[in-house]
Amino acid sequence: MPTVNNMEQANGHLVEGDNIDEYFVSYEDLQVHQIMLTDRRRNLAYKNAIEDNLHEFKDKVVLDVGAGTGFLSVLCAQAGARKVYAVEASEGMIPLLKDTCRINNFEEVIQVVAGKVEDVELPEKVDVIISEWMGFYLIHEGMLSSVIHARDKFLQPGGVMVPNKSSIKACLCRVPSLYGSWDSVDGVNLSHVGKMYRRRYLTEPAILVLEESDLVSGQVTVAEFDLHSVTDADLVRISKEMVTVPKETCHAQGICLSFDVSMFGQTFSTGPSEPPTHWKQSVIVFPDGVEVEEGEGVAYRLIMTRTANPRRYAIELSPLEADEIEHEVGCECSMARCRIISAYIKEQERLDSEDNMETGEEEEN
Amino acid sequence: MPTVNNMEQANGHLVEGDNIDEYFVSYEDLQVHQIMLTDRRRNLAYKNAIEDNLHEFKDKVVLDVGAGTGFLSVLCAQAGARKVYAVEASEGMIPLLKDTCRINNFEEVIQVVAGKVEDVELPEKVDVIISEWMGFYLIHEGMLSSVIHARDKFLQPGGVMVPNKSSIKACLCRVPSLYGSWDSVDGVNLSHVGKMYRRRYLTEPAILVLEESDLVSGQVTVAEFDLHSVTDADLVRISKEMVTVPKETCHAQGICLSFDVSMFGQTFSTGPSEPPTHWKQSVIVFPDGVEVEEGEGVAYRLIMTRTANPRRYAIELSPLEADEIEHEVGCECSMARCRIISAYIKEQERLDSEDNMETGEEEEN
Repeated sequence: MPTVNNMEQANGHLVEGDNIDEYFVSYEDLQVHQIMLTDRRRNLAYKNAIEDNLHEFKDKVVLDVGAGTGFLSVLCAQAGARKVYAVEASEGMIPLLKDTCRINNFEEVIQVVAGKVEDVELPEKVDVIISEWMGFYLIHEGMLSSVIHARDKFLQPGGVMVPNKSSIKACLCRVPSLYGSWDSVDGVNLSHVGKMYRRRYLTEPAILVLEESDLVSGQVTVAEFDLHSVTDADLVRISKEMVTVPKETCHAQGICLSFDVSMFGQTFSTGPSEPPTHWKQSVIVFPDGVEVEEGEGVAYRLIMTRTANPRRYAIELSPLEADEIEHEVGCECSMARCRIISAYIKEQERLDSEDNMETGEEEEN
Repeated sequence: MPTVNNMEQANGHLVEGDNIDEYFVSYEDLQVHQIMLTDRRRNLAYKNAIEDNLHEFKDKVVLDVGAGTGFLSVLCAQAGARKVYAVEASEGMIPLLKDTCRINNFEEVIQVVAGKVEDVELPEKVDVIISEWMGFYLIHEGMLSSVIHARDKFLQPGGVMVPNKSSIKACLCRVPSLYGSWDSVDGVNLSHVGKMYRRRYLTEPAILVLEESDLVSGQVTVAEFDLHSVTDADLVRISKEMVTVPKETCHAQGICLSFDVSMFGQTFSTGPSEPPTHWKQSVIVFPDGVEVEEGEGVAYRLIMTRTANPRRYAIELSPLEADEIEHEVGCECSMARCRIISAYIKEQERLDSEDNMETGEEEEN
């Protein structure tokens, strides 16, 4: 058994056989990587997308933006990439990243490039850009701007972005952990303590895991980004008027934001209908519950504005009159116009399916 | 639907009808209370102990040391206490604590006393001292010293302490989250990253939830405190030589510390054999796994020393030769002396049970 002395600072000599003493990574940063690397849904979304599309990587040149520990770079090398440029801005991560290449026997294939992707130069254009750039509600603390910059600077015409699409989703929800049982915490009324907790979330979204049963409406799309065409200007201010339609008459307690990304047609969703990821969901919490009625559209405007600190967004939510804004085609609210459009769509679908059945019968004959 | 503007600081006017604007509680402190109040095993341990022993509270005078949100004070008032002194040192909590009394209709019974229990005066001695003072591995960030001070100053002769007993337990364990699958994170070898994480825990225990299957040995007792007699001097330095006996031949990866407390004979355990609490377990992590053999006692000395910051302890673990220290009676290791004692105890138990059976038969006759 080793001696463990929690009184002294850690001594590097206890861990030998690698460059571990050269890792100047803060434990906070390390914690972030630990949380990411133990998020198996995240890992497998990338791994499966790569392994199901080996032809996109075989003998190709890949750029990994924000390579971190090198997890994605190794997956690409395993998939047969001719070269992987692993760009990482955090200086402390570089020796660790190099060790990842060495330990996994890809020192020849993966070239570690220290620096911001905006500042570095590469000796060639790349066929594929891969990156795990997503933050809470997709864009918070995200690095999509850096990925866009890398695309414009390094991607071959006709090159591939992984992921290639992303979207922000919103729906009405309950928030049991903040509203839940505060009026009877094992028999003690602490409703005022619950209010305190909720008040915190007037200044920032609550990052928490909701259950599917906490959802009060279907999801609507706040924003969609095609990674091949999105520009940095698209990220400055995202404003969307939305109608969400309650599935039940109840108290809605917030707006749940989550995101989906797509890689080679495979969708990876961080919404509450899927098992949780380390991104959880981001909830704009109402200070008090709001009564909503089944089928009665709830309309609001959501504005996300990039702040002076470009890694952060300010989120503003304001109510609208449901009858004063445009509802999307297929809106399931009870307003006359939406009911008529909805009935029309259903009728068309019925006719189409009858046509198909007839066609099917003809083919059988 | 309310307007929620995450760009502005929260405005108190959104939450009305109570003194909520007077709460100057930091969100960090609030978070701690939220974590405690949503720990149902903790809540119910106290609630059940109180409700199963109403006669200890009915018409009695109670002191709640570190009343916080007032949860325990209300439970005592509900149990029929004549008076509850709710002492709380954190000034920001006082208006919130007063609201708890008001909302639960115990303004007459519960008297909120602002200040450290060491500094305040009460108009009378008390029959019961209740407190939830336990920290990680019982004594970290704990406030047992304050509870001892309160006991010596305010408890009637023959008065009751809740809890009345506590102990620190230790056992050998595996630590899957730190050792686990780092040599193949979904196919990528990141063993050096795993080493980094483990190195962090050379300077502090890892606070995490273990499964019962992670335990490699039975539990041994590091320290026991009787709340009626423990003194502050007992808490300055806790040193214990221990032998833990592996249940299997494997790699041990740490020492798991947890604690039990007892209230009116009901034991509340935070060990890994019970459902998790917000205290989780505290693990002294070995930098590298240590091979242990089934039945071969592993001996070590554990020293916990209170630091200049009296809320913290330095923990030192050093290996000992199993044959050079005293093994406790009942030790199940394979050393000759322990095997002989163990066999003797079993034989005695057999004889005792035969005696009992004979006695039983005689009584039947």
